[in-house]
Amino acid sequence: MPETQVAALLSLPHGMPREGRVRAVIDAVLPSVDGGRFAVKRIAGERFEVTAHCFTDGHDVLRVELQWWREGDTTVYETPMTLLNNDIWQGAFLPEVPGRYIYTVLAWVDGFASWRHELTRRVEEDDIRIAVQVGALEVDAAAKRATGEDAQVLARLATELQQAAADRSVEGTRLKAMALDASLETLASRYPDRRLEARYGAELSLVVDRPRARFSSWYELFPRSAGTELGKHGTFRDVEARLPAIQQMGFDVLYFPPIHPIGRVDRKGKNNALVTEPDDVGSPWAIGSDEGGHKAILPALGTPEDFRHLVAEAGKHGLEIALDIAFQCAPDHPYVKEHPGWFRWRPDGTVQYAENPPKKYQDIYPFNFECDDWQGLWTELKSVIDHWIGEGVTIFRVDNPHTKAFPFWEWCITEIKREHPEILFLAEAFTRPKVMHRLAKLGFSQSYTYFTWRNTKEELTAYFTELSQPPGHDYFRPNVWPNTPDILHEQLQSGEAPMFRLRLTLAATLAANYGIYGPAYELLEHLPRNPGSEEYLDSEKYQLRTWNHDDRQSLAPFIARLNSIRKDNPALQTNATLRFLPVENNQLLAYAKASDDGTNVVVTVVNLDPHQTQSGWIGLTAESIGVAPGQSFQVHDLLSDQRFLWQGEWHYVQLDPQHTPAHVLRVRRRTRDENDFEYFL
Amino acid sequence: MPETQVAALLSLPHGMPREGRVRAVIDAVLPSVDGGRFAVKRIAGERFEVTAHCFTDGHDVLRVELQWWREGDTTVYETPMTLLNNDIWQGAFLPEVPGRYIYTVLAWVDGFASWRHELTRRVEEDDIRIAVQVGALEVDAAAKRATGEDAQVLARLATELQQAAADRSVEGTRLKAMALDASLETLASRYPDRRLEARYGAELSLVVDRPRARFSSWYELFPRSAGTELGKHGTFRDVEARLPAIQQMGFDVLYFPPIHPIGRVDRKGKNNALVTEPDDVGSPWAIGSDEGGHKAILPALGTPEDFRHLVAEAGKHGLEIALDIAFQCAPDHPYVKEHPGWFRWRPDGTVQYAENPPKKYQDIYPFNFECDDWQGLWTELKSVIDHWIGEGVTIFRVDNPHTKAFPFWEWCITEIKREHPEILFLAEAFTRPKVMHRLAKLGFSQSYTYFTWRNTKEELTAYFTELSQPPGHDYFRPNVWPNTPDILHEQLQSGEAPMFRLRLTLAATLAANYGIYGPAYELLEHLPRNPGSEEYLDSEKYQLRTWNHDDRQSLAPFIARLNSIRKDNPALQTNATLRFLPVENNQLLAYAKASDDGTNVVVTVVNLDPHQTQSGWIGLTAESIGVAPGQSFQVHDLLSDQRFLWQGEWHYVQLDPQHTPAHVLRVRRRTRDENDFEYFL
Repeated sequence: MPETQVAALLSLPHGMPREGRVRAVIDAVLPSVDGGRFAVKRIAGERFEVTAHCFTDGHDVLRVELQWWREGDTTVYETPMTLLNNDIWQGAFLPEVPGRYIYTVLAWVDGFASWRHELTRRVEEDDIRIAVQVGALEVDAAAKRATGEDAQVLARLATELQQAAADRSVEGTRLKAMALDASLETLASRYPDRRLEARYGAELSLVVDRPRARFSSWYELFPRSAGTELGKHGTFRDVEARLPAIQQMGFDVLYFPPIHPIGRVDRKGKNNALVTEPDDVGSPWAIGSDEGGHKAILPALGTPEDFRHLVAEAGKHGLEIALDIAFQCAPDHPYVKEHPGWFRWRPDGTVQYAENPPKKYQDIYPFNFECDDWQGLWTELKSVIDHWIGEGVTIFRVDNPHTKAFPFWEWCITEIKREHPEILFLAEAFTRPKVMHRLAKLGFSQSYTYFTWRNTKEELTAYFTELSQPPGHDYFRPNVWPNTPDILHEQLQSGEAPMFRLRLTLAATLAANYGIYGPAYELLEHLPRNPGSEEYLDSEKYQLRTWNHDDRQSLAPFIARLNSIRKDNPALQTNATLRFLPVENNQLLAYAKASDDGTNVVVTVVNLDPHQTQSGWIGLTAESIGVAPGQSFQVHDLLSDQRFLWQGEWHYVQLDPQHTPAHVLRVRRRTRDENDFEYFL
Repeated sequence: MPETQVAALLSLPHGMPREGRVRAVIDAVLPSVDGGRFAVKRIAGERFEVTAHCFTDGHDVLRVELQWWREGDTTVYETPMTLLNNDIWQGAFLPEVPGRYIYTVLAWVDGFASWRHELTRRVEEDDIRIAVQVGALEVDAAAKRATGEDAQVLARLATELQQAAADRSVEGTRLKAMALDASLETLASRYPDRRLEARYGAELSLVVDRPRARFSSWYELFPRSAGTELGKHGTFRDVEARLPAIQQMGFDVLYFPPIHPIGRVDRKGKNNALVTEPDDVGSPWAIGSDEGGHKAILPALGTPEDFRHLVAEAGKHGLEIALDIAFQCAPDHPYVKEHPGWFRWRPDGTVQYAENPPKKYQDIYPFNFECDDWQGLWTELKSVIDHWIGEGVTIFRVDNPHTKAFPFWEWCITEIKREHPEILFLAEAFTRPKVMHRLAKLGFSQSYTYFTWRNTKEELTAYFTELSQPPGHDYFRPNVWPNTPDILHEQLQSGEAPMFRLRLTLAATLAANYGIYGPAYELLEHLPRNPGSEEYLDSEKYQLRTWNHDDRQSLAPFIARLNSIRKDNPALQTNATLRFLPVENNQLLAYAKASDDGTNVVVTVVNLDPHQTQSGWIGLTAESIGVAPGQSFQVHDLLSDQRFLWQGEWHYVQLDPQHTPAHVLRVRRRTRDENDFEYFL
């Protein structure tokens, strides 16, 4: 049914509703993304809290239930919601496994509870007597809805109430006590009359991912540059040799640019040259040649067996392989001959290659998502992802998703996650904010961000505040990168280690998901192709490189330390609790994060100036981190292992960028052991 | 179809969409109330602006249309939306007559415009030549969609482009100029290919009312106290005698408590006494006796002819009559015998009267909205309103709507406004915020507020800021009252004129809709029934009163002045533009309002202290009121007729409450006439 017809059905009927006696009102069920059009995102094992505005006319008592089920399961669960205040009700459930869940809210005016509430306020003997007669009828009705022994007990209690009310010798206070008996309430409440129950107008969706969707540390490398011999094409075997070092740096996702055969027609040379030399390897994003397309492996890298072996070895090193999904073709991709209808042909008999005039990408043909055989195209593209899932891949980084039709992504990701709820997708869309948000709504598990271009204190504060708050926070999971093969930010072009360390620290502590393009990053690669460019000189995108991992300047030990801190501190594994702290120095950025349960608190102070020592007073009250006002607490710098005792609201900090870019301070609260020995936990 | 089934249809289909090539995306159409579940409210003749987030994949050019129609009309209108910035598109339409309108947004990727945009960026001769060939095909396709002469012209232009592109002697620059010809663009744009058009997922509703919904000045009086002779029941004729005075005070709505026969069973005596004396007249809200029910008129007030005469006479005095709709019955209302099923009977054979234990309203039976014959009840209640519409009533003030089932109001108001779009409803719900908002969403044109209990600067600022902003502002129209027959606020119980004047000024200048319960207000009635009570002593609710309109203390002239200022200044006829101005004195409240077009600006400064002179500096920049920075402007106190010249940002104000509660300052900007004579407009 087209959306428009559905909308027409939602509009107010001209006549009466089929059932007009539904007196409970349910409004504003939250969280929800665009009124339920898109799914909220959460993590398996994380308590999912829902609020709703519920009320009814007059003074009757409402009962409210949160209803939920896992898509595909037949069991529907209900959990009572409780009144917080101001007609706001709250309930929660715990989705234990990844998948798509549906939730909504039900409410009804509860006859028994309303009667009971009214009785508690009655004082006059006659009023009580009549009220108890009314109550006997309520209990009797509950008895008729009940089953088994409960039905008998309720029927007996109804009769007793009826008889007591009729007996003028039973006093009002006694009557009232009988009727308000707690066990009667418990029993009768089990059998409510829900015939006139209200149901919220939408069924809302929740996509539950595995924890890595929320907390991950990515390392990107070009397998073809994993070799150790200059000019020799690296292989999956060479990558395997690197696994221990990458594990040691503490990463958990290892991401490769496309590993497929690379087109030969219009292949780009070194530094994106239009003319190639015989040994030029081309851009991995120009996918496909007569060696195969998106499901094939570039022979120089290895065989499918080699790839499966690498996936398994990576797993042993705590690393998941993430593959690049770039839905575009080199001119000699098999698709071009087999499915010419998937491309846009021009009157001169050539295919319209990718371009953003005057920029031209002659080695890349985009798909035409408006082609007649769009179903065939969609089916084939999805089968590419299915193929690699079959090969053991669990994470996909999608190249430029915003240049493919949006409905395709919604369908493709939803279908794949229906079959494989554990699969994660990262959207590489460096584009306009509303487009990036739409992709996240459509289903991408994580999204690239503007972090690379957010450099000042003001920019970082505004951007990460926005990212950590609803509504965006409910569906957009940022994954921040100090560099990528496409982006060597001007700030890094000096090649100074303090700047590389500070951007890395910001990424790793501001965002739960982050990544670097290495070894370029840890080895301080910093020359641009030309002045003013964000492209790397001699970029791996177009040529083989070898790297000197033994460079004494390598940031690998520093990265290892940061990632280890991230793993040990749940506070750094979420964005929801981020808050910036006042400090009157524009070169110092201070922020606190806490774990969901509040027990783990990390305060990070970064010196944004890579050249000068900076100092200032950080504003942080004891109460805000769960310490009694006035009491001192310890902050333990997890980078330097120094410990400081803080008390009061303002705390002095001084950072020398030559020494360290930041304090990453774990808050340790005063506690005592069984021997009354005081220490900091 | 129940809401739940509709929701299921809205959720993502398991398979592919029927049409997957719809590449335009439409998101966040605003304004909307709860995603279109409820209607936005506006006024006839007011430009209705709509924004939407629209974009597509890649670099293609979008066209976006705002589609709208009046419910019941067959004509569907479309008006182009234009890109503001950041993927936000804007469009508008002008609903000229009251009624319910539907609007939504359409967008499509425009082949011709995309091609044209691409061509403008092409520089190389070969590229241009191929692009013009592609363009010739676009123009030819447009020709096939066109009709009449346009089709012929477009076909000819397509051929010309084709031939020129094929002719190597025609240079690229010449080719480009031909293809980018403006008249070709105009013509081809008329025939877009909309086969793959996207349509927003919801059709949104807009309720357009007549201007009085937004701007009205209410005067409430008890007709039975309109007489001049002590102890004699007032009549509609007596009310007619008061019309000139009420008109002179500048009101435009004259609202009566219920005018129906009053129950005799369990009638309340003076000051709500349980025991009545023979001459007690009872509460008008205890509706119905053997003289008739909700469609009848209390004989002591007059006949139906008298009522119709009064309605007509009021009209001649610029006054609309508003009737009270109180859907409840006295025990001797004819409904109780005729439709016993509409009430909730107790085991002792009595009807459950209204109560909020321990408070009891023995003279009032509520309807049971859960009764089996709810359709019959709904139909009859609606027919009451229809009856009075037939008698010339155009505004209804609904008593305690929150104690009746919410679905009834949505149906009743929607149905009545479908037949009579000019009818207005004011919700008298002094209850919890979310309940009040729901009633406004369901269709009430105006709503009572908490104004009476918002007294300090902080309270007033917070409350009116909330009321003037979306989302509430889009559907909740506040109508503020300094007093009602039920609410004599403690602040007024001193009876001091300065306090009465300041609360009146606040109501009349903060809110576009306001009202007073008179003559109690202008005659400074102020004694409570007992200390701590908000009830009036000797309230008209329970007894006849006569009023001395000639009292020299009467605020009538002051009220007349305020209402006249309201009528002359469009700035005071809207709430949307309200903003509070800084002033460092907690007893001074300053705020500015502007008309929709910004030409009329009124700055009000109220002294909240009725006893002491207060002074302070008001912060108001020239730019914020459309005056060039640095230039002086005049502020003209419309209460005192004084004029002041203001310049710069801070302006000194001093108010003596014995003299005046406020400045109501119309901003007059410097201008020149044709003789170059400078004056303030």
